[in-house]
Amino acid sequence: MSLLSNIHSPADLKKLPADKLDDLAYEIRQEIISVTSQKGGHVSPNLGIVELTIALHRVFETPKDKILFDVSHQCYTHKLLTGRNNEIFKGLRQTGGISGFCNRKESPHDAFGAGHAGTAASAALGLAVARDKNGGSENVVAVLGDAALTNGITYEAFNNIASATKKFILVLNDNEMSIAKNVGAIAKYLNEVITNPACNKLYSDINAFLKKLPMGEAVTKFTEKTASDAKSFILPSSLFEYFGFLYLGPIDGHDIPLLEKYLNYCKSSTRPILLHVITKKGKGLEVAMRNPEKFHGATPYDIITGESTSNADKSIPNYQDAMGKTLLKLAKKDSKILGITAAMASGTGLSYLKNELPKQFFDVGIAEEHAAVFAAGLASQGMKPVTAIYSSFMQRAYDCAMHDVCLQNLPATFCMDRAGLSPNDGATHHGVFDISFLRPLPNAVIMQPSNEDELADMLNTAIYSGKPCFIRYPRGKAEGVPMKEEPEFIPIGKAVELEASDGSIVIWGFGNMLRPAREAAEILSRELGVKVGVVNPRFAKPLDEELLLKHADSNKLIVTIEDHSVSGGFGSACGELMLKAQSKAHLCAIGWPDQFIPHGSDVATLRKEFGLDVDSIVSKIKDAYYR
Amino acid sequence: MSLLSNIHSPADLKKLPADKLDDLAYEIRQEIISVTSQKGGHVSPNLGIVELTIALHRVFETPKDKILFDVSHQCYTHKLLTGRNNEIFKGLRQTGGISGFCNRKESPHDAFGAGHAGTAASAALGLAVARDKNGGSENVVAVLGDAALTNGITYEAFNNIASATKKFILVLNDNEMSIAKNVGAIAKYLNEVITNPACNKLYSDINAFLKKLPMGEAVTKFTEKTASDAKSFILPSSLFEYFGFLYLGPIDGHDIPLLEKYLNYCKSSTRPILLHVITKKGKGLEVAMRNPEKFHGATPYDIITGESTSNADKSIPNYQDAMGKTLLKLAKKDSKILGITAAMASGTGLSYLKNELPKQFFDVGIAEEHAAVFAAGLASQGMKPVTAIYSSFMQRAYDCAMHDVCLQNLPATFCMDRAGLSPNDGATHHGVFDISFLRPLPNAVIMQPSNEDELADMLNTAIYSGKPCFIRYPRGKAEGVPMKEEPEFIPIGKAVELEASDGSIVIWGFGNMLRPAREAAEILSRELGVKVGVVNPRFAKPLDEELLLKHADSNKLIVTIEDHSVSGGFGSACGELMLKAQSKAHLCAIGWPDQFIPHGSDVATLRKEFGLDVDSIVSKIKDAYYR
Repeated sequence: MSLLSNIHSPADLKKLPADKLDDLAYEIRQEIISVTSQKGGHVSPNLGIVELTIALHRVFETPKDKILFDVSHQCYTHKLLTGRNNEIFKGLRQTGGISGFCNRKESPHDAFGAGHAGTAASAALGLAVARDKNGGSENVVAVLGDAALTNGITYEAFNNIASATKKFILVLNDNEMSIAKNVGAIAKYLNEVITNPACNKLYSDINAFLKKLPMGEAVTKFTEKTASDAKSFILPSSLFEYFGFLYLGPIDGHDIPLLEKYLNYCKSSTRPILLHVITKKGKGLEVAMRNPEKFHGATPYDIITGESTSNADKSIPNYQDAMGKTLLKLAKKDSKILGITAAMASGTGLSYLKNELPKQFFDVGIAEEHAAVFAAGLASQGMKPVTAIYSSFMQRAYDCAMHDVCLQNLPATFCMDRAGLSPNDGATHHGVFDISFLRPLPNAVIMQPSNEDELADMLNTAIYSGKPCFIRYPRGKAEGVPMKEEPEFIPIGKAVELEASDGSIVIWGFGNMLRPAREAAEILSRELGVKVGVVNPRFAKPLDEELLLKHADSNKLIVTIEDHSVSGGFGSACGELMLKAQSKAHLCAIGWPDQFIPHGSDVATLRKEFGLDVDSIVSKIKDAYYR
Repeated sequence: MSLLSNIHSPADLKKLPADKLDDLAYEIRQEIISVTSQKGGHVSPNLGIVELTIALHRVFETPKDKILFDVSHQCYTHKLLTGRNNEIFKGLRQTGGISGFCNRKESPHDAFGAGHAGTAASAALGLAVARDKNGGSENVVAVLGDAALTNGITYEAFNNIASATKKFILVLNDNEMSIAKNVGAIAKYLNEVITNPACNKLYSDINAFLKKLPMGEAVTKFTEKTASDAKSFILPSSLFEYFGFLYLGPIDGHDIPLLEKYLNYCKSSTRPILLHVITKKGKGLEVAMRNPEKFHGATPYDIITGESTSNADKSIPNYQDAMGKTLLKLAKKDSKILGITAAMASGTGLSYLKNELPKQFFDVGIAEEHAAVFAAGLASQGMKPVTAIYSSFMQRAYDCAMHDVCLQNLPATFCMDRAGLSPNDGATHHGVFDISFLRPLPNAVIMQPSNEDELADMLNTAIYSGKPCFIRYPRGKAEGVPMKEEPEFIPIGKAVELEASDGSIVIWGFGNMLRPAREAAEILSRELGVKVGVVNPRFAKPLDEELLLKHADSNKLIVTIEDHSVSGGFGSACGELMLKAQSKAHLCAIGWPDQFIPHGSDVATLRKEFGLDVDSIVSKIKDAYYR
């Protein structure tokens, strides 16, 4: 790592002779592979963007110039080139280490934070307009993956850019993938652009500009070289021209000198410009190129075989697999069951359905709002749509959940994956607000299973309930319980009493917090000499009001534990009822505190740090009990 | 009304001879003007779409065929033609009467409900895919205003249509307006399409089809007529072709025979097709054509002068005007203050800023997500963005509020207009969930003023707080209090105690519910012989914990009243704190119940019906006090 380890800032990069840049790119790839193979992370997108990032930092001057990465899970090279290499990079996504995303608090080179797709163009327009108002001259560059073109916010921004500023650079990093293989009309369009030889046409003004560059012989050969390097400059009738952008490309995104030339041209443009760059996702790691979806976001892996080296117990299934397999089983028997994902077939377990029943599977791209409204449309005609969506991305579809699904009381099911922590990703990906934002919606049913078998029952129940249903469950390992052959229909709004209390304490442990609830109950029973009751609430809405009020009338303390913010969450719902009924019991509501939870090495570490491990739970309950 | 009054279903319309249709259109316009001039309503969009709706119902067979109106505030002609004319139509938007929007519960002809823009294409795709799965043959038609093209969901849908179905009809009703004059690149594009004579080109397959139609002489002249009528068929490189649609148009949207011909062609298309129709918003009402923005959604008006005939006290300003004027005043002194609206400059009062300081004003189109991220981008560079947005549309920007604004703790202000009821519009427009969904977001400051002077203080406070701030306030009349010359900075998280209690009851009346709180306190003090305390809480987050706990320790009952759902709202926040502190007082939380509140004649009627009028409040407090 002789080159990379000596780059402490983009200034060092600029000093490097051009003929060393490919070596640097090689070193960067090795470092990304080395660290992610041990720590996990976003492998493929970062391997694809190495040369483009080098070229960006050679041409632009961050932090004066602003580079905004959409989603920003492709920022590793950017971090390595802006003072976060060597030991710092080895702490990637770990407790106390750097984030896997851009983060304004982490570095002045991180112009804007992001973890969700589609925001870069809008945010960059904010930066560009602020620059114009301040009379500044810095460049603002938004780097979008092609996935951003499946997301509506990008178009909302596109519609506003040309009328708002003259100086704006969009770089479209097109690897023909978002997270899964891209879908829909835009993916088809981009593919046609890339493969159509009729697109080979040069803008004369670009030519004129390039001829003026002080590059000697290289320039004279430029126009000939371009045709093969770049495949083309495209016709002015490209899709992007409709939005008022000058369009350049597509060009080879692994050719650093070429990228530098084009980016320099972009700097000089007097109107918004889009540079279309073609890259190869996973480049430099054979196993990642062969399976880019798996290596989009990977757990620790063997560099040669690509096999996961995570030492988790493989006999215990993930919630994702349990959901995906159950959905497949149910869909085989009922052709009206349709699975929908917003580009997360693999992450959510919907790939089982995709592979076996592709006609009952829809990947709509990174388009959560469309997914939810599309599901509502299907449900209105008697279909049984199941939309698998990460809890934090459900936030995108909130209005649709209200306006299209719940208001019309349509029987659509939402499987909210990653409810709770996504520990290595951090605050952008933690799903700890979903109960709060869904609970006020009339007609909504909100549930969380305590194990994978109950998840199967809940999925079955949701699909046949005739109601808008939202099932939340965490990332990763379930409980390892036996799965019934056929999932059952469970009564909506009914909790399950597992341990009766002696009138002292009852713990309502919601979903995956049932296990720590039981452990805490055991410790407390032993230490306090009482019999602590335990309930599996199953539903946050409708609550089992009868059982809760019975407990609240006959116990000193009700405890709720949830893998969710305490603010407006499950405990808050219980509290509302207890207050309304003027119950005598006290309530101790345990959950994530009212602050953004950062990333960390694993769930256990973060639970300990924020008071959700069993010891902390026991201690909080004791405090409340003896108060 | 000899024609219209005898049309009880689309079948009656189909029996009408073609030469009577213009007369029918005239009658429909008179009826819309007659009813809206007395009851208010969406005037301009409905006057523009009369002929198009007649043609749609002549060509298609609802309820078998499905017509989905985007936003659906242009559905009046549709309602008049589908069994809701005569006396039924006169109850438009009133208690017990029909809705101003499409509503699945109201009629089988209303294929899908909507009140927010941009959902029609996604929902229609759900209906089309369900039809394909069911082996049906019905037509699915999505009618979009041009405003839908400023909204991201539409593009998310566009990206998915061609790959999901072959039979799908989009009608683009282009009146060059969304609600305000359209903005951005797409509006410019559509304008160029309409005005460019080079676009006059015919598809041979359309010609061939039309020649086969049994229309005698009309057909032979068709091709000549088209060039002038339709201005053009457009080149296949139109924007919409990129999304895989066949594109037809633009054609005159007030020529019923022409519309019927083209819609019949659309029925026969074997791939998704978009028909571009040009209409005139407000057509048939001179005052509405002159001022389409004002007549988009109007209160009762004089048909000749266009003046509002609402008998509300004009000496009391609207919250909207107070906000708009205060923002202008502050922006004059601070050029970093920028106002942002998503096509609601007039509705939110931002038109004051637009007119006087246009460089500090941004209308981004119906694009709430972009608005919020753009604001975050501006705020990150020291600008002071103020986004005025209806509470129910803030739901669209929820993820942006979390991921872009609050997570980065950026000082962006959101003025959430229409918080509380939008009585004539109903459930799609009531803003009764915003506290619930914003409260769990760390860093968020949420406030509501009790009068217009306090709104000015809160706006000033929000802008200079350095925090993400969300100010909610209702539609319509404020309190008529004197406005200070200069707004003040109020302490964040501090409530104001207005009346001390004697240890019996304290009422925390949030925002506009402070007035009913005071009235209730007076009645209760008199009737119960106690001294009821009254607090103006000002903040839902951060709560004035010190004062609330002081009250909860020294009173029998705390009452909260809010113009918001009780589920997860202001009262719930107070309850969380009281439970955590194991306060002795009981809590009586009063707000809107956990059900969708329908439309009604006015706020007073709905408050009475749902228990938020002063009498009901008094009675609820008594129940809780004596329990």
